[in-house]
Amino acid sequence: MTTTPPTPRTRKSPEQVRTATHQAVIDLLCDPQGEDLTIPAIAHRAGVNHTSIYRRWGSLDALLADMVTTRLESTSPLNDTGTLRGDLLAWAQASAASIRTPEGRALVRAVILSMPNTTQSQDERAQHFRRRMHSIEQIRERATTRGETPPPLEQILDQLVAPFYLRAIFGIDPPTTGYPETLVNRLLGNEHPHPTNH
Amino acid sequence: MTTTPPTPRTRKSPEQVRTATHQAVIDLLCDPQGEDLTIPAIAHRAGVNHTSIYRRWGSLDALLADMVTTRLESTSPLNDTGTLRGDLLAWAQASAASIRTPEGRALVRAVILSMPNTTQSQDERAQHFRRRMHSIEQIRERATTRGETPPPLEQILDQLVAPFYLRAIFGIDPPTTGYPETLVNRLLGNEHPHPTNH
Repeated sequence: MTTTPPTPRTRKSPEQVRTATHQAVIDLLCDPQGEDLTIPAIAHRAGVNHTSIYRRWGSLDALLADMVTTRLESTSPLNDTGTLRGDLLAWAQASAASIRTPEGRALVRAVILSMPNTTQSQDERAQHFRRRMHSIEQIRERATTRGETPPPLEQILDQLVAPFYLRAIFGIDPPTTGYPETLVNRLLGNEHPHPTNH
Repeated sequence: MTTTPPTPRTRKSPEQVRTATHQAVIDLLCDPQGEDLTIPAIAHRAGVNHTSIYRRWGSLDALLADMVTTRLESTSPLNDTGTLRGDLLAWAQASAASIRTPEGRALVRAVILSMPNTTQSQDERAQHFRRRMHSIEQIRERATTRGETPPPLEQILDQLVAPFYLRAIFGIDPPTTGYPETLVNRLLGNEHPHPTNH
């Protein structure tokens, strides 16, 4: 993607404000100049008044959380492949493709920046985490319905989700071939050598 | 740890400025009020002039990187346990203990915030990453010297390092018993039987 210059400030509908503001966050996170991510900077780039942003979202954390939820929902359609292994592989393939793009890495960064960073909000953090792990929970539920036994959520987190986050954070691209398969095989065991079978 | 009130601004030696500034970053990252991490906010809390901070570190990223390096070096003594397995286990135990504390989680957050966030700095990111992975590289080198065959760095990253980062980010405490052993067994295989893996 390319970063866009600040948008001229014209009258916008609430939905246009939302879209422009979300895009401004992504652009700032991808910006080679590395300008700090602040509400005034976002407002300037989005071409909206910063008071509109404070009124609508209240805080930068809340804006980031809304942006992340919207983007992740729009980019993570989760088709039922018919097996736990197939579903996890599809999730991993989508994640691998995403973190190869600046926008995908920016999204991971936004997820992290939007975490409530207080010592008292363990519950809030856990809630935030469950929202982010919604797609993994869906995969687990489908597996259970089919009569499969999925690994515990925390194990999927450690073995499948965590590597993508860390690679996105440090900008370490995943290996170009076989990486999703490697992670899924480590998680489920290697008894199905061809992950797309049955 | 408890957060401290802003320090009165008195004449400080360069080393005192550095210590006070680093502590102010940690305090702000742990602060239940969640004040944004900016150089003026850091200067205020540290009781130093913000121009001193700009002069010394140049940018927030650079300050965070310096703080992280200093803290991680002071808190990660890496004794040679005599085996690859023992060294990795010691690393994992120290990491598990660290992310149970607000300061430990703040440190992980600072590592992430200090990442160069530009699309053009893949090299810079990789360098930053290698500095953060220095202790893991030391463990690998010692193993090779002993005649052991350590897993590739990226595999250690995916299976041992990544889970701690993700748990610190989302505030998900690791299981209270056996977690370091579980991760190391997954990484190295379970030939030294300890029934913590599944």
